[in-house]
Amino acid sequence: MNKGTLYLLPCPISDETTPWEVLPAANRAVMDALDYFIVENTRTARRFLSKAGIARPIDTLEFRELNEHTAPGAAVEELIGPLLQGRSAGVISEAGVPGVADPGALVVEACHRHDIRVVPLVGPSSIILAMMASGLNGQSFAFNGYLPVKPPERARAIRFFERRARTEEQAQLFIEAPYRNAKLLEQLLQTLAPETLLGIAIDLTAPTAFVETHSVAEWRKREIPEMNKRPAIFLIG
Amino acid sequence: MNKGTLYLLPCPISDETTPWEVLPAANRAVMDALDYFIVENTRTARRFLSKAGIARPIDTLEFRELNEHTAPGAAVEELIGPLLQGRSAGVISEAGVPGVADPGALVVEACHRHDIRVVPLVGPSSIILAMMASGLNGQSFAFNGYLPVKPPERARAIRFFERRARTEEQAQLFIEAPYRNAKLLEQLLQTLAPETLLGIAIDLTAPTAFVETHSVAEWRKREIPEMNKRPAIFLIG
Repeated sequence: MNKGTLYLLPCPISDETTPWEVLPAANRAVMDALDYFIVENTRTARRFLSKAGIARPIDTLEFRELNEHTAPGAAVEELIGPLLQGRSAGVISEAGVPGVADPGALVVEACHRHDIRVVPLVGPSSIILAMMASGLNGQSFAFNGYLPVKPPERARAIRFFERRARTEEQAQLFIEAPYRNAKLLEQLLQTLAPETLLGIAIDLTAPTAFVETHSVAEWRKREIPEMNKRPAIFLIG
Repeated sequence: MNKGTLYLLPCPISDETTPWEVLPAANRAVMDALDYFIVENTRTARRFLSKAGIARPIDTLEFRELNEHTAPGAAVEELIGPLLQGRSAGVISEAGVPGVADPGALVVEACHRHDIRVVPLVGPSSIILAMMASGLNGQSFAFNGYLPVKPPERARAIRFFERRARTEEQAQLFIEAPYRNAKLLEQLLQTLAPETLLGIAIDLTAPTAFVETHSVAEWRKREIPEMNKRPAIFLIG
């Protein structure tokens, strides 16, 4: 029996855009053909598919969740059971491209183990959009997820990434929970050397999008962008 | 006087796709409005815009090249002259998203220095597509560009990235000139430890796309995909 295919289906990263402003129209044919979705959050996935105007009624689709509450192992194997039996599935994360910095990677990993074909579709990734628009050297860059929350450890992490950015000429990207953005920025401006380059990317793909890169010395002279509760990526170069 | 805006315009990464299979339809309105393009290669940029069916006749557009032959400094400042005078520009690289692993970053950097707004548009990035479909831990990953060419230095680089992937749980991505892919893969399979995970992504977005991740021990037992002259990304996890 032929196995199904696992499609990685990006969705918007901003509530201010409609799906087809940030996704290729060709993704639609794939989405229209699927009736099984492995999702980070059922409610947001249903809302996305409904806004996208897919062909099938949302109530006829099967949704199963894969998120931080899912135990790796048996639960993930169960999710790919239908694929082994020939049914294809779409993976949808909370925002943006699935499989990067979200639990979707677990189901992809299981598919490779079972020789199930994995097909990634094009869509918005705040990491790559931030990197493009930062002007930092893109020959080498690293995405590091979240920094530690406690200020002393966070300061150590900031200095570690600053050193690596300099010695390896590798731009260092990280994110923060949106309500802590302003606090992180404050600490970055205190901790980094004046000549270090700092990129800030906020609300990517939205009409309110903001991306600028300046030296820390220059940022200290400028008005700081309002970042409270706005999704952001920070870059050190 | 208002300054222009610098738009980063992705293009396809495979000759086997049409532009609108991998780009959001919304990119078109931006492309239609521009008459000035800063491009890595004029011939391929013209061909892309023509295939995309933009509104203006290609012959009425101005193209200026920014590539490995462009000296940083005065030449880049000259490219953004029109933006300072209120004209907007589009940046187009040889393939995929501009500004990442190509000279486009130089013009972005100059724009931030002159407070010119930079807007990145959505499109295919082989780095992020490979990462999505690899199943490797996407909480942390690094793109490292090309490895050294000479076998002894290359072996050292491979071992360095293998160690970093393990100790930092950071997936390590790199690329090779397509005609050297098979040789690099051979060396990876010789040099890496049997339990190390190796992802191979070939021809992303094309109908012939191939992405699989297995342990090195498992790859050694498998038939190796034909990689000659096919664009590929390698991932160590």
